[in-house]
Amino acid sequence: MNKTVIINEVGPRDGLQSQDGELSLEERQRFVQALLDAGLKHIEIGSFVSPKAVPQMAGTDELAKALQTPDGAELSALVPNMKGYERAQVAGVGTVAVVVSATETMNQKNINMSLDDTMRVAREIIARGKQDGLAVQAYLAVAFECPFEGPVSQAVVTELAAQLLEAGADLLVIADTIGAANPAQVKALMGSLVLGHGSARLACHFHDTRALGLANVFAAIESGVRRFDASTGGLGGCPFAPGAKGNVATEDVVMLCEQMGYTTGIKMPELLDVVDLIGGMLGRPQGGRAHYWLRSQAA
Amino acid sequence: MNKTVIINEVGPRDGLQSQDGELSLEERQRFVQALLDAGLKHIEIGSFVSPKAVPQMAGTDELAKALQTPDGAELSALVPNMKGYERAQVAGVGTVAVVVSATETMNQKNINMSLDDTMRVAREIIARGKQDGLAVQAYLAVAFECPFEGPVSQAVVTELAAQLLEAGADLLVIADTIGAANPAQVKALMGSLVLGHGSARLACHFHDTRALGLANVFAAIESGVRRFDASTGGLGGCPFAPGAKGNVATEDVVMLCEQMGYTTGIKMPELLDVVDLIGGMLGRPQGGRAHYWLRSQAA
Repeated sequence: MNKTVIINEVGPRDGLQSQDGELSLEERQRFVQALLDAGLKHIEIGSFVSPKAVPQMAGTDELAKALQTPDGAELSALVPNMKGYERAQVAGVGTVAVVVSATETMNQKNINMSLDDTMRVAREIIARGKQDGLAVQAYLAVAFECPFEGPVSQAVVTELAAQLLEAGADLLVIADTIGAANPAQVKALMGSLVLGHGSARLACHFHDTRALGLANVFAAIESGVRRFDASTGGLGGCPFAPGAKGNVATEDVVMLCEQMGYTTGIKMPELLDVVDLIGGMLGRPQGGRAHYWLRSQAA
Repeated sequence: MNKTVIINEVGPRDGLQSQDGELSLEERQRFVQALLDAGLKHIEIGSFVSPKAVPQMAGTDELAKALQTPDGAELSALVPNMKGYERAQVAGVGTVAVVVSATETMNQKNINMSLDDTMRVAREIIARGKQDGLAVQAYLAVAFECPFEGPVSQAVVTELAAQLLEAGADLLVIADTIGAANPAQVKALMGSLVLGHGSARLACHFHDTRALGLANVFAAIESGVRRFDASTGGLGGCPFAPGAKGNVATEDVVMLCEQMGYTTGIKMPELLDVVDLIGGMLGRPQGGRAHYWLRSQAA
């Protein structure tokens, strides 16, 4: 059994995009560098969206150029469409992430496109990535529950997942965008997807809205999933989804995995320092339970 | 598969005993009555310990006499020894709980007795309960990790569990007293115990110290366990601080179970009102994540 868990840090994107106010490019660069120094090898550094719509992500081009990616690290950026893809490519980003919401209404609300159109754009970006030598991660958002349409059927998610993997996505990330999943659902869905496609190209993205984040991570591990999005300090939320709280905290997921005997390659003391660093930059303390608990042990 | 989960509310005992200051008997009675009104049928109302050692639990005799136990409800009290048992019996308590810690040092520190002596007392109380027609619940404390001796081996717990069940305990509660268990351990231990003894006489008691409480509840449910201790509002720690050391919150466990399709018989709106009630009595807001989330949905 594979005892290595990959953590993809999404704090610099999913975390920062929902904050009031913007960090400077220098601060964002320092944040990503600190994450690399803490042993995180997979980091979503930002997104190539309109700076008017999401000012927190303005200048991701310059950030990508400024960052020195160490060997073996994977820095990714979210792109909403082909224009964003091209900006990412020019900036030298090696991995892009595209998002398809599993429901019609969420696609309309999120990017004013139909589900069919979003799927078409995702397929085009995946194909283009293959030509250009860029890796493409496909996110399937609101994969358990949609804030507008309610519960999402496993059959719908299974079909969209198969289409995205068949289109050649290098990774498929099943995202509980609003933190509504429960571990029984996670086990049923992820168990079925791992059975159908193997786990190498699957990942999960959980929010901790109802305190079920770590239970869901455990359920996914039980199902064979070995890659998770997380954000340092539990930073973030989803600005377009009412009720979404932060991602599961990176330090909480690392603690859970390491305590169960899995290896993440992440250095906890350094990671706890990053929690303090980003809390200082934002002027608001950040930190999941592991942060509090481990700090209290050290005191 | 059994889709009913029993919640044993321990807020009036495990929750209140760790609070600064004491509630009046009238307040404790109002707390228990509100829990009964919210549909909780299993409630640990207090303990028969020395009022000098634990002033928060003074007067449990009068509390037990004052409470009107509805048909079908089970009110229990913790007894540290035969003297406590006899006080409970005189007060008309129908179910008592005895505690054996799984390590030598914890027994010494907790009640100044050896593990052998604690086991002997537990067996005597179980036997006495059978004579008197009282139900006896046996707690196996620090069943995953001891604050003094560190990790506790599954073999030791398995052996002590078998002895307590063979002695005739009506229920065996495996307790992660310091909130150190991880869900992989829980699944391994509880899976083995359910296999050996069935699940009818097994329960789990988790603390949320490292935010793994709900993941551990899920892992135990997966193992076949259908009974859990929990405390309303996560009482016993500070639920709004990231380092809460309280029991898993009753409202969080109910939410988890109900969302996975299990029935608990507990009325959530009334339960959330009990969270506010006890927070008001203590002068400190209480409440797990479900409380926060469900209240925010209602707003």
